[in-house]
Amino acid sequence: MSRSALDALVEALRRLPGVGPKSASRMAFHLLQHDQEGARLLARALDAALERVRHCRRCNTFTEHEVCETCLDPQRDATQLCVVETPADQAAVERTGSYKGLYFVLMGRLSPLDGIGPREIAMQRLFERATDGQVREVIVATNFTAEGEATAHVLAEGLKAQGLRVTRLARGVPVGSELEYVDLGTIAHALVDRR
Amino acid sequence: MSRSALDALVEALRRLPGVGPKSASRMAFHLLQHDQEGARLLARALDAALERVRHCRRCNTFTEHEVCETCLDPQRDATQLCVVETPADQAAVERTGSYKGLYFVLMGRLSPLDGIGPREIAMQRLFERATDGQVREVIVATNFTAEGEATAHVLAEGLKAQGLRVTRLARGVPVGSELEYVDLGTIAHALVDRR
Ligand SMILES: [Zn+2]
Ligand SMILES: [Zn+2]
Repeated sequence: MSRSALDALVEALRRLPGVGPKSASRMAFHLLQHDQEGARLLARALDAALERVRHCRRCNTFTEHEVCETCLDPQRDATQLCVVETPADQAAVERTGSYKGLYFVLMGRLSPLDGIGPREIAMQRLFERATDGQVREVIVATNFTAEGEATAHVLAEGLKAQGLRVTRLARGVPVGSELEYVDLGTIAHALVDRR
Repeated sequence: MSRSALDALVEALRRLPGVGPKSASRMAFHLLQHDQEGARLLARALDAALERVRHCRRCNTFTEHEVCETCLDPQRDATQLCVVETPADQAAVERTGSYKGLYFVLMGRLSPLDGIGPREIAMQRLFERATDGQVREVIVATNFTAEGEATAHVLAEGLKAQGLRVTRLARGVPVGSELEYVDLGTIAHALVDRR
């Protein structure tokens, strides 16, 4: 069978995170056999996103403008800056409805083994952003993974050196959960961070 | 944030089978932040596949030609026709190296509740193909799921009515499993032991 266009599609789908050879071929089959409209939509959405999406000059998140709407919002508290790894993390903080400050999105976390250093997470731009004279507190909300914690440590050192107040989300027991079912590490951290 | 191009990309990725909202947003982030080349490749691969891939006139599988290479291969045994649900199943049978006949690919299985009837699986075309005067045996290799078994039953009835010898993959294939995920040896044995 001459299936080069199909093979190329399967190969391209395999570059998506979490997609192995079997899922890629199932996806290609689905698109060609049952959802050609979806295939067309996806191709157009990829082109449009590649052309239009860029990074906010102030907070580094994805936007189609020079500066994103959040950064331009005069209702936000410009004295607080919350540092997150990704736009998805930013969205998670926004959903809480309990934060009214601004953001800086690293678009990753330090991971020397993967070649992700200070430059890749725009650390210098964060330092410039945080020292605009308005920001008083930087809340470092990187993930509570080994890499997220290491990133938080490096950022906190640098930000404190600029004379800024640096805080970190409290590690603790998730609301609504029973201690019995919470892992030991979380309980241990919740003890250390007790208020 | 004005994120319509990004939102559209996440929505388009969600149409892929097995992709929920979180995976879709992880994929969009990965493509835009870490693999724009992959995003471009995927868009082009989708366009090329939509434009070039069609169904083989003889066996119904995906091909870029009028008739696929397998159907045109003079080395294949034209007296045997193996009926499978998908190109992935056909590939699984091919990988065993123990089948030298030809194929018919249903591109699905009967599933009345999903609106997939005889027309959607090209049943009439299979009957025409199987009665070309050369085919002596039809090996029904639909999956051993409820729908695959029901499809096999309907096909066997119709094919026997045309005076054809109809066999089914037999022992070795675990009930309830899909061919694509069965190991080579099991499929090879099931071919030998077909009833
Ligand atoms: Zn911004
Ligand atoms: Zn063919």
